[in-house]
Amino acid sequence: MKEEVPIAEKLAKEQREISVSQFFTKNKHLLGFDNPRKALSTTVKELVDNSLDATEEINILPEIIVEIKQLNDTRFIVTVEDNGPGIVKEQIPKIFAKLLYGSKFFKMAQARGQQGLGVSSSVLYGQLTTGKSAVITSKISRNKPAHYYELQIDTKKNEPNVIKDMIIEWDKDHGTKVKIELEGFYQKGKQSVDEYLKQTAIVNPHLNLIYINPEKYKMEFPRVTKELPKKSKEIKPHPYGVELGVLMQMLQDTKATTLQSFLQNDFCRVSAKVAKEICKKAGIYEKSRPKRIAREEVENLLKAIKETRIIAPPTDCLSPIGEELTLKGLKKEINADFYTTVTRPPSVYRGFPFQIETGIAFGGDIPKDEQIKLLRFANKVPLQYQQSACAITKSVINTAWRNYGLSQSRGALPIGPVILLVHIASVWVPFTSESKEAIAHYPEIIKEIKLALQDIGRKLVVYIRKHIKSKEQKEKIDLFEKYIPELAYSLSKLTNHEKDEIESKLKKLLKKELPTLEAENGAKE
Amino acid sequence: MKEEVPIAEKLAKEQREISVSQFFTKNKHLLGFDNPRKALSTTVKELVDNSLDATEEINILPEIIVEIKQLNDTRFIVTVEDNGPGIVKEQIPKIFAKLLYGSKFFKMAQARGQQGLGVSSSVLYGQLTTGKSAVITSKISRNKPAHYYELQIDTKKNEPNVIKDMIIEWDKDHGTKVKIELEGFYQKGKQSVDEYLKQTAIVNPHLNLIYINPEKYKMEFPRVTKELPKKSKEIKPHPYGVELGVLMQMLQDTKATTLQSFLQNDFCRVSAKVAKEICKKAGIYEKSRPKRIAREEVENLLKAIKETRIIAPPTDCLSPIGEELTLKGLKKEINADFYTTVTRPPSVYRGFPFQIETGIAFGGDIPKDEQIKLLRFANKVPLQYQQSACAITKSVINTAWRNYGLSQSRGALPIGPVILLVHIASVWVPFTSESKEAIAHYPEIIKEIKLALQDIGRKLVVYIRKHIKSKEQKEKIDLFEKYIPELAYSLSKLTNHEKDEIESKLKKLLKKELPTLEAENGAKE
Repeated sequence: MKEEVPIAEKLAKEQREISVSQFFTKNKHLLGFDNPRKALSTTVKELVDNSLDATEEINILPEIIVEIKQLNDTRFIVTVEDNGPGIVKEQIPKIFAKLLYGSKFFKMAQARGQQGLGVSSSVLYGQLTTGKSAVITSKISRNKPAHYYELQIDTKKNEPNVIKDMIIEWDKDHGTKVKIELEGFYQKGKQSVDEYLKQTAIVNPHLNLIYINPEKYKMEFPRVTKELPKKSKEIKPHPYGVELGVLMQMLQDTKATTLQSFLQNDFCRVSAKVAKEICKKAGIYEKSRPKRIAREEVENLLKAIKETRIIAPPTDCLSPIGEELTLKGLKKEINADFYTTVTRPPSVYRGFPFQIETGIAFGGDIPKDEQIKLLRFANKVPLQYQQSACAITKSVINTAWRNYGLSQSRGALPIGPVILLVHIASVWVPFTSESKEAIAHYPEIIKEIKLALQDIGRKLVVYIRKHIKSKEQKEKIDLFEKYIPELAYSLSKLTNHEKDEIESKLKKLLKKELPTLEAENGAKE
Repeated sequence: MKEEVPIAEKLAKEQREISVSQFFTKNKHLLGFDNPRKALSTTVKELVDNSLDATEEINILPEIIVEIKQLNDTRFIVTVEDNGPGIVKEQIPKIFAKLLYGSKFFKMAQARGQQGLGVSSSVLYGQLTTGKSAVITSKISRNKPAHYYELQIDTKKNEPNVIKDMIIEWDKDHGTKVKIELEGFYQKGKQSVDEYLKQTAIVNPHLNLIYINPEKYKMEFPRVTKELPKKSKEIKPHPYGVELGVLMQMLQDTKATTLQSFLQNDFCRVSAKVAKEICKKAGIYEKSRPKRIAREEVENLLKAIKETRIIAPPTDCLSPIGEELTLKGLKKEINADFYTTVTRPPSVYRGFPFQIETGIAFGGDIPKDEQIKLLRFANKVPLQYQQSACAITKSVINTAWRNYGLSQSRGALPIGPVILLVHIASVWVPFTSESKEAIAHYPEIIKEIKLALQDIGRKLVVYIRKHIKSKEQKEKIDLFEKYIPELAYSLSKLTNHEKDEIESKLKKLLKKELPTLEAENGAKE
């Protein structure tokens, strides 16, 4: 190394900021745009998820229209229209053409979207592969005009670039329509757009969906209930979930003027009594100004929080599907002999409330000798990729299904005529990647999923036992009936009684037993 | 919905920008900080990778000191010191305390770091779990002073927060020392810091590493070669790898004043002749101003590029380990009977050059009846996590190892006394997540890995056949020798010749054959 011109100075000139758009342009597979097929289904998914979240905001029954128009072998236009609240003019560019922008990231409430990445990443991908702008139309009220935008993302700055901005007529009270042109590939079957929409209909039984596929075939997924899902409420963070660095930041940002009021106001479940107890344990005066608490004291504060009994966070931030509606959803889309569902009570990981639901469809059209079909959902969104990397799959594999009437090889999914649905609802679902395809392996979550599977397993095995038992008994009766004449003949020879008399008595006896057997037989739910 | 106050207006107030630091604070598992154990090894990895990249910049033999000091059950201080070029004062805060900042993201040259995320994410994690600042000392030349910084990340802005900034004495010509305090957990074995360092030593045989572990035990990994790895050169993007959106951006950003000069200057492998051919095929005048080319024309341009024969990108942007040094690395750290290595010629995916290398150690201390041990590397960095999600693992599993002398169950790693090393070197390694743990499943990459495995498989089976064959022959000779007296006795009875004479003749015969057999026997490399 020449001392005169340190190489460090040459290297310094190469250092640059990387915008988050540039980062994800190069890493688009992280957002679910690995290949053209997945790109198409990711785009539909992000738009439909947004529409469902939007309609939930205004407690309205969702009416969503999805259209995929094929332009040539590799090019498509995806349009998704909803009857949600619409978006105010000023917010439209940022929501659609800026990555990491949104309302849900900082909000502790269950939602499909959570990162502020989904819809803008679809816009980015469309722009990258076709150069075309995303087209947004949105109307927020009958009395206000609709706004029409053509948007691109300035990838260097990660800021919206408004190409067109107009007021237009739109014969609709309120709602949003998004149109994205992109390179893609359309295929049916597993992991397809069609399958995604079908699964979405299962866990959103209140949704009315119209889907026009690239072959111009129009499909309807009608709603089976007018009951709206319980709206999830926003909660404050729970003290047990806070980390040192975050706590330090919160103390700087708070509007509270004393430590005690900070603890009471900025967290959930902290009463005056609990706040005082924490302060005392931490050895910090409860009237201290939050901004002036030193790092070492914050460490003591965090330790004190961990040592104090605080009740679990409220769970009205969650909106599970519920046992009844999950049942309706399954029955609507799957033809089976037996259906059952379980919704577990809410639980908590790292201060985040979450809840596991599971459902089973058994028999009927479902293939008997194959591995079960596993449907995974997070906040009512189907997870179609990376099954093997998911905590749900791990939990299913590690459950002893032999106890519940199914056969199973070690380390594999069980075998049997079963479609198994598992849903995690949470204010923050920990995904293994930005594309939200698999749940990370948090022990608290895996434990709860296992408990849910055991609950539903016990319900399944009751049905299987009855089902198989009654079937076996029916076979025994049939066999016995068949041999009555021969038996009567032998008995008549041995006892010197009339053969016909014995035969009629045996038949009577059999009839007496039948009602009990038939009652067991009719055990279908 | 009440028409008077559209909910959209209430919702608009909740919309916010999410800084990339805030995003990764909540999603820290995406960066490799899933749990305390992994957090510790990720931190060491990011710092050591940076040090190795730095020393390569100045063509110097790396001298790296890693120290992990344990403060209590869960708290550690990681210090990594190198003899790299150092960092100029102004750049230190951003490099260490701003996510998505660096020199390698926009550079087409093989490097360990590529995203501008690694070291700053370790600083972020330390701050989050301990509230402590990262401490950086750096010196760029003997004649200049050393700079000392204490840094935090302002997570709301994703900008550095300088806590301390001093000039200090440092008895060193040039280099950088980084100290991070964090919550962690130290454990030996698979996926440990110790294992990461051992594997790093294998693929960086020119590295001299001193490691002081949390038990204060000092380990040395001495270099086995003074030969420096070939320095990777920066190349321009290849036209085959460019996407429409990126091409449009490049046309806006270029300094070239004509389309032809743009094609020649902003890409590699485009001569005047090729540039003219592309313009002609696209139907665009070669002297057109790049900034004025319309979207539709860019589409034609991209189509024309795809239809034009352009030679593959230069491969001096790559720095493979090489067959000889991989062999040295394996021999240094693994005790086996047989070693062999293969470096494939470079190949290209999406315009990015890449190259596969593989090595095998067989027999010796390696367990016989277990699945082989697979060591995965990307740009000379060991990949310790997510083995099952990696394209390398997939390729190994899908290779028919029975053809190469190992037993193998369907869908599993082969069984045998083998440590298998696979290395991908590329200007842009496509990882499945920011934490860079597994290679994404690009078909071109999987194909090349398979070819490399077949190459090395053929070398392995030659050794196994010889080894087993000679062993079997030796056993036959021993057996034959044992029965010579008895055979001689029988022959003597049958033929009336002297038993001793026959015996000595048989022994002579055996000796005649021996040299050939022994030559085959001594086939160890």
